[in-house]
Amino acid sequence: MKLASLKAGRDGRLVVVSADLAWCADAGHIAPTLQAALDDWQRVEGDLRNLATDLEHEVIPRDRFHERDAASPLPRAYQWADGSAYVNHVALVRQARGAEMPESFWHDPLMYQGGSDGFLGPRDPIPLADESWGCDFEAEVVVITGDVPLGATREQALAAIRLVGLTNDVSLRNLIPGELAKGFGFFQAKPASAFSPVFVTPDALGDWWQDGKLHRKLLVDLNGEPFGRAEAGEDMTFDFGTLIAHAAKTRSLSAGTIIGSGTVSNRGGDGGPGQPIASGGVGYSCIAEVRTVETIRNGAPTTPFMKAGDTVRIWAEDDRHHPIFGVIEQTVAAS
Amino acid sequence: MKLASLKAGRDGRLVVVSADLAWCADAGHIAPTLQAALDDWQRVEGDLRNLATDLEHEVIPRDRFHERDAASPLPRAYQWADGSAYVNHVALVRQARGAEMPESFWHDPLMYQGGSDGFLGPRDPIPLADESWGCDFEAEVVVITGDVPLGATREQALAAIRLVGLTNDVSLRNLIPGELAKGFGFFQAKPASAFSPVFVTPDALGDWWQDGKLHRKLLVDLNGEPFGRAEAGEDMTFDFGTLIAHAAKTRSLSAGTIIGSGTVSNRGGDGGPGQPIASGGVGYSCIAEVRTVETIRNGAPTTPFMKAGDTVRIWAEDDRHHPIFGVIEQTVAAS
Repeated sequence: MKLASLKAGRDGRLVVVSADLAWCADAGHIAPTLQAALDDWQRVEGDLRNLATDLEHEVIPRDRFHERDAASPLPRAYQWADGSAYVNHVALVRQARGAEMPESFWHDPLMYQGGSDGFLGPRDPIPLADESWGCDFEAEVVVITGDVPLGATREQALAAIRLVGLTNDVSLRNLIPGELAKGFGFFQAKPASAFSPVFVTPDALGDWWQDGKLHRKLLVDLNGEPFGRAEAGEDMTFDFGTLIAHAAKTRSLSAGTIIGSGTVSNRGGDGGPGQPIASGGVGYSCIAEVRTVETIRNGAPTTPFMKAGDTVRIWAEDDRHHPIFGVIEQTVAAS
Repeated sequence: MKLASLKAGRDGRLVVVSADLAWCADAGHIAPTLQAALDDWQRVEGDLRNLATDLEHEVIPRDRFHERDAASPLPRAYQWADGSAYVNHVALVRQARGAEMPESFWHDPLMYQGGSDGFLGPRDPIPLADESWGCDFEAEVVVITGDVPLGATREQALAAIRLVGLTNDVSLRNLIPGELAKGFGFFQAKPASAFSPVFVTPDALGDWWQDGKLHRKLLVDLNGEPFGRAEAGEDMTFDFGTLIAHAAKTRSLSAGTIIGSGTVSNRGGDGGPGQPIASGGVGYSCIAEVRTVETIRNGAPTTPFMKAGDTVRIWAEDDRHHPIFGVIEQTVAAS
């Protein structure tokens, strides 16, 4: 089953979307918003699935689904917690600045509490007041959970995953060192994120969803050029079950919690930093990583951060090259 | 005007509360929940204020208001961002562990993104799975904002304050060093917070609300003994307008954002650490601070963190010693 929220009010209007993303059907008679559906999942899931089946069979009124009309599936959420499960990415960033990465990072997940009071739509511009802040994208896989009890096991956590999607976790790189030095984590360095127009239940992903990981390539284009083609199922040190259980260690998580994988990142064939796509590698899922690799290789970064007018595209494809979750496509706009 | 949410469903049921906290009137015909009221404040504020006036005049149906029936006014919120505005508290903590506090802390607010997907009720037990985590309370002042535009000035931020209240920001002290060392801020160290049963519009606070600060004593009792009597209006380096503007520097804030002051803390009469109440001082608003002072004075802390059965009470009073926001009263329970 695929779900989306058409832009309307603060929380959007819930629709069921056809598998090919061409059509949608209003789900307002079942639940007005995705959050309302998640709040009451046991009661509404069956009705939503029946609606999805009817939509595929073309036996109910349907509308064309236009991704540009979609908000992020949860236009605002009660929780957005982002892990850093591709430890390779963290190791590279540390290596570039000559800092040792603690060995514990390989078995104790990194996670930060993100702002969730308002997300950008998947095709919305990224408002940027100051280019010197160093605007970057981060292409990630995310899941939305149901209620997760305090102290949940990995297995309980996996069973609580309701939907899978993608995010562009916008980051202001040049604000990060100052904030991290203060010791309280990210705040100003993490403005509003955007999510893929469509989120998908794990069962509808078939073999692409296994062991709490999405086994598909994450495609990233920057200004129309291929920038990243990393395999999301590879080099993910912590699967989503482990990330959710980490988040639930000292408190329960409410339905509608979004958990992120952190920037998807693959090692190079030699186990070291990966190569750009132009050099035959799988590229990168954020600018910071290519700058890190440039620093390691050449002593200084050369790829600039995003400026007004730059466009990033983030998506994943089925075997016929059709987007699974729709496409995040955002252009930076001076604000 | 005073507002509360009676326990019901995930978001509570909005009521208007009389100034003396004795009575309440259902506000469901105006807005079903506090979040719904904040989402549509321009439209509903007048109706809510009329209802509050009618309640004071006893011209409408009313019910006894029992604080034990109240949830936190926002039982879950889209954002909870906690500052550390009483820099004296931060300076003491650093001093106790022999770490220099950067001078910038006096003009650049510290703030962390807190979990907001589910809060404890003001009389709910604090679930604690492991006493070795070092369970502490933090008594703070908080505000709830309306929509705040990206890049808001302090004045715009002050004008966006809708309600004022108190919180117990529960902290697991012994999990903090490990999390801060990882560099991503608090996560497991900050389980669910609880808020005062009643929140109050700034105008209803009269002279007690000035310059974006609450000018009342914050009273804290631990196991029935006076523990803290700090003046919330004193030693607050950053007022709420400054804290909100800090939060809105790189992104807008949505209606229903809760901003916290951080632990209220007063300097001693000599400018150094304050004295316990038993020694004639104003005491402390969290256990960590008294442990810090004990460490500075005696080389080691002696006051233990909270254990199952320990009870903390947090409130503020009017001139007749009646609680303004009701009382947070929580007992630690093994979970």
